[in-house]
Amino acid sequence: MQHTVKQKIYRILEVTRGKKSGITWFFNLLLLSIISLNTLAIVLHSVKSIRHEFDTIFVDFEYFSVVFFTIEYVIRLWVCTENERYKHPIWGRLKYMLSAGAIIDLLAILPFYLSHFTSDTGLIRILRLFRIFRLFKFSRYVHALRVIEGVVKEKREELILSFVFILFLLLISSSVMFYLENPAQPRVFSSIPATLWWGVTTITSIGYGDIYPVTLLGKFFGGIIAISGIAIVALPTGILASGFAEHITIHTKQHTRHKFCPHCGKELP
Amino acid sequence: MQHTVKQKIYRILEVTRGKKSGITWFFNLLLLSIISLNTLAIVLHSVKSIRHEFDTIFVDFEYFSVVFFTIEYVIRLWVCTENERYKHPIWGRLKYMLSAGAIIDLLAILPFYLSHFTSDTGLIRILRLFRIFRLFKFSRYVHALRVIEGVVKEKREELILSFVFILFLLLISSSVMFYLENPAQPRVFSSIPATLWWGVTTITSIGYGDIYPVTLLGKFFGGIIAISGIAIVALPTGILASGFAEHITIHTKQHTRHKFCPHCGKELP
Amino acid sequence: MQHTVKQKIYRILEVTRGKKSGITWFFNLLLLSIISLNTLAIVLHSVKSIRHEFDTIFVDFEYFSVVFFTIEYVIRLWVCTENERYKHPIWGRLKYMLSAGAIIDLLAILPFYLSHFTSDTGLIRILRLFRIFRLFKFSRYVHALRVIEGVVKEKREELILSFVFILFLLLISSSVMFYLENPAQPRVFSSIPATLWWGVTTITSIGYGDIYPVTLLGKFFGGIIAISGIAIVALPTGILASGFAEHITIHTKQHTRHKFCPHCGKELP
Amino acid sequence: MQHTVKQKIYRILEVTRGKKSGITWFFNLLLLSIISLNTLAIVLHSVKSIRHEFDTIFVDFEYFSVVFFTIEYVIRLWVCTENERYKHPIWGRLKYMLSAGAIIDLLAILPFYLSHFTSDTGLIRILRLFRIFRLFKFSRYVHALRVIEGVVKEKREELILSFVFILFLLLISSSVMFYLENPAQPRVFSSIPATLWWGVTTITSIGYGDIYPVTLLGKFFGGIIAISGIAIVALPTGILASGFAEHITIHTKQHTRHKFCPHCGKELP
Repeated sequence: MQHTVKQKIYRILEVTRGKKSGITWFFNLLLLSIISLNTLAIVLHSVKSIRHEFDTIFVDFEYFSVVFFTIEYVIRLWVCTENERYKHPIWGRLKYMLSAGAIIDLLAILPFYLSHFTSDTGLIRILRLFRIFRLFKFSRYVHALRVIEGVVKEKREELILSFVFILFLLLISSSVMFYLENPAQPRVFSSIPATLWWGVTTITSIGYGDIYPVTLLGKFFGGIIAISGIAIVALPTGILASGFAEHITIHTKQHTRHKFCPHCGKELP
Repeated sequence: MQHTVKQKIYRILEVTRGKKSGITWFFNLLLLSIISLNTLAIVLHSVKSIRHEFDTIFVDFEYFSVVFFTIEYVIRLWVCTENERYKHPIWGRLKYMLSAGAIIDLLAILPFYLSHFTSDTGLIRILRLFRIFRLFKFSRYVHALRVIEGVVKEKREELILSFVFILFLLLISSSVMFYLENPAQPRVFSSIPATLWWGVTTITSIGYGDIYPVTLLGKFFGGIIAISGIAIVALPTGILASGFAEHITIHTKQHTRHKFCPHCGKELP
Repeated sequence: MQHTVKQKIYRILEVTRGKKSGITWFFNLLLLSIISLNTLAIVLHSVKSIRHEFDTIFVDFEYFSVVFFTIEYVIRLWVCTENERYKHPIWGRLKYMLSAGAIIDLLAILPFYLSHFTSDTGLIRILRLFRIFRLFKFSRYVHALRVIEGVVKEKREELILSFVFILFLLLISSSVMFYLENPAQPRVFSSIPATLWWGVTTITSIGYGDIYPVTLLGKFFGGIIAISGIAIVALPTGILASGFAEHITIHTKQHTRHKFCPHCGKELP
Repeated sequence: MQHTVKQKIYRILEVTRGKKSGITWFFNLLLLSIISLNTLAIVLHSVKSIRHEFDTIFVDFEYFSVVFFTIEYVIRLWVCTENERYKHPIWGRLKYMLSAGAIIDLLAILPFYLSHFTSDTGLIRILRLFRIFRLFKFSRYVHALRVIEGVVKEKREELILSFVFILFLLLISSSVMFYLENPAQPRVFSSIPATLWWGVTTITSIGYGDIYPVTLLGKFFGGIIAISGIAIVALPTGILASGFAEHITIHTKQHTRHKFCPHCGKELP
């Protein structure tokens, strides 16, 4: 069977389909390297001394990355019609543009172009923040991130229920703590929103030490919240942990789900 | 079957019974919105700048809420006799008034009226604190809170046992730590009650940093308590987490406990 | 059957045997009250202002308690021969004196008498510390404490193994951290024993904030220890939690251990 | 069967093979004692006052230990050919030298010799750090350390997956937090690498208190990361804990996995 250029490129880009040729390996390794280097660049660029010394390198690498990612985006958009789901030349491509992968790819390059239309340094700063979306480009390769997505989706109801618990506990405990501690520490426990920060650092047991009760009643109430709160926060932890554990068991151990009836010996559905 | 006005109102208020009509949906959505706005008002009112700027809005909204909740309470008390359990016009209504839901509804409005009988700002402050009981009005709608109630009730014995452990550990460790650290830090470890705060922040692993041992013996003993204590505190966490997990499994998955072999029909062990 | 005075007293004191008479209930409730009051006295006596104001009450109560506990101890020693295990008038009583319960009873009163033979305030201070052994007198009544004993005994091997893990991790990580941080913070990370305190507060995730790495290498190493260490500390937590859970399941649910063979229907051992 | 001297020594050193004679017990106890004393020496040597007072003892003990460990290493290298796996006089011995146990033995003595070839105090300091490899000599005796090795090996895939999760979460959350907090706290949140330290102390719930958000947005984002991050970190904890638990169950309880009905002899499902 003869393949067109478009079909060949599609096969190179779509790493998960069919057996991988050398060029597929090469291209995807190149892409992974550039994403990794971008991650490293984002991290190192934030260090003042490094930023000042290697300024031109950072600028050049940024231009190179954007050009590379833009070409990648355009090519992906061009060849996506080879996929059955995005078959139609116009509507298929629009549908592809709204897929999670394509949106991440766009968010990785769009801020760069938008920053040229403004001279507002505050806005440029925010646009630069969006560069970290490039990290999400890893998600095409890192199976782990699709696992998170799957587990969160499956345990959706339980997680929402748990977060309602936590939010309720946070609101009640912070409101009471505000009334107890505000007279003694009007600057630290200045309002209920400020006290919510105490609530979060306490029930997650972080305890930075920037906000804590000093009155007898505040400490007594805080102690009760600390002990009972930790139990409530353990809930989503337990749900997610068991969700991941289930996933790992099913996917890595090839656990046989179909057992046999011990009475008649036939396979169970 | 012809319904009286009372029956109709009862059906509107009691959201959990029968199929919901449009007016039931509308009324309960309105009530939920007003409770949410009250929660928001309590939180925002605690922020000084917001309180000063929108003072009249807060006062007006407080009056409106109290009037609304009072009417709601009176109507609920009027129609409660439609319920089989509160059938008797007098004793039924008294019995209803002592139900958890009715007490929460009363506590949401009573402080407002009581605050008019006193000019003691301290008392008014405390009465205002009781406004947070309005959050508990959510419990009629949030299934999650009834779940907490159920789980705590079911695991009552185990939880009491665990808290006896924790209380005992707290008392013993804080008494010993007081004797070890008091000579070195007479102001921080000033008494056993003060040292109990160290105990709580240590065994819950919060560690705000306001109280910790500095002597060699104190650190050695504190380290042992830290490691062993965390295991003890993990107990109620584990009990509650497993309790919630059981509940979630039973209620959201409709897990059939007794399975049957679909081939021979016999029960599986 | 005629009972002697000794037998009658033995039955009153030994609460767990046979059906309880009114006087048994009364005596044990009295004893529990005095132990509770002693606990309260120990806690309140540590508060300076309370100690100074009610000094004579504390002294009087101390004398009363010691007299009461001494009489209790002597009577228990007298009647213990009614128990089959301590039958012999001399050897049986000596054996009884070496039982855990009798040692706790003795430690609750002995320090008071010993403190009269010395004028060394340091020694008197230590002897006073031993008063907290009175809390352990609760153990005769609190089933929970016997549960701890049982669980720890059953999971002995696993717990020792876990603590060997933790000790090893603590020693290795603190030695390395000492070499990394000592040059930068010679006062805080002054020695490996001092750094062990960092190790404990880090792997238990307490983090008081009195000791933490500041160098790049120290933070990097500390981060790895923090993440991996928490997993190691989770081990005894998990062992104890599962041990308690097993115990609770067996003792409170009357879980049937004997199942039946699904093939031949006979009971399994 | 007649044994050569080499065979006899091999049997003395290899504690896990065959029944242990008195001399085997004696030698291994001696070795354990010297390793323990070395551990104690490393810990105590780091305390300035002790180091200064007992300087000559530390130096003498160091010489003694190195001589002892060197002789041990040479003898082990001589007799290792008795083991089937290291049979060949040259290649077998080279293969033995590359085994984990032999490398640990070498690292325990090599730094001492290397430190004589340099006068650079910085390098000598680093070489002295390697003395803590002597602790790993315990691994020949402590079964627990081989358990860690086994569990980590078995759960390798799941652990790598979890650490990819954590690394990803750390990078994303620290990048965002850096952009949110840097303008308000340019000295504390000075760069993304510096903010990673915040990320680690937050998701492990340590919270030393040296770095935490102060802006409203930073606290809001930090709270979300704190709650969700703890769930992610719970994953490797859960994996390792379950891995250890499995190991303990299998190895200490001799749990029979396939049971048979003692009445009819058929296997139970």
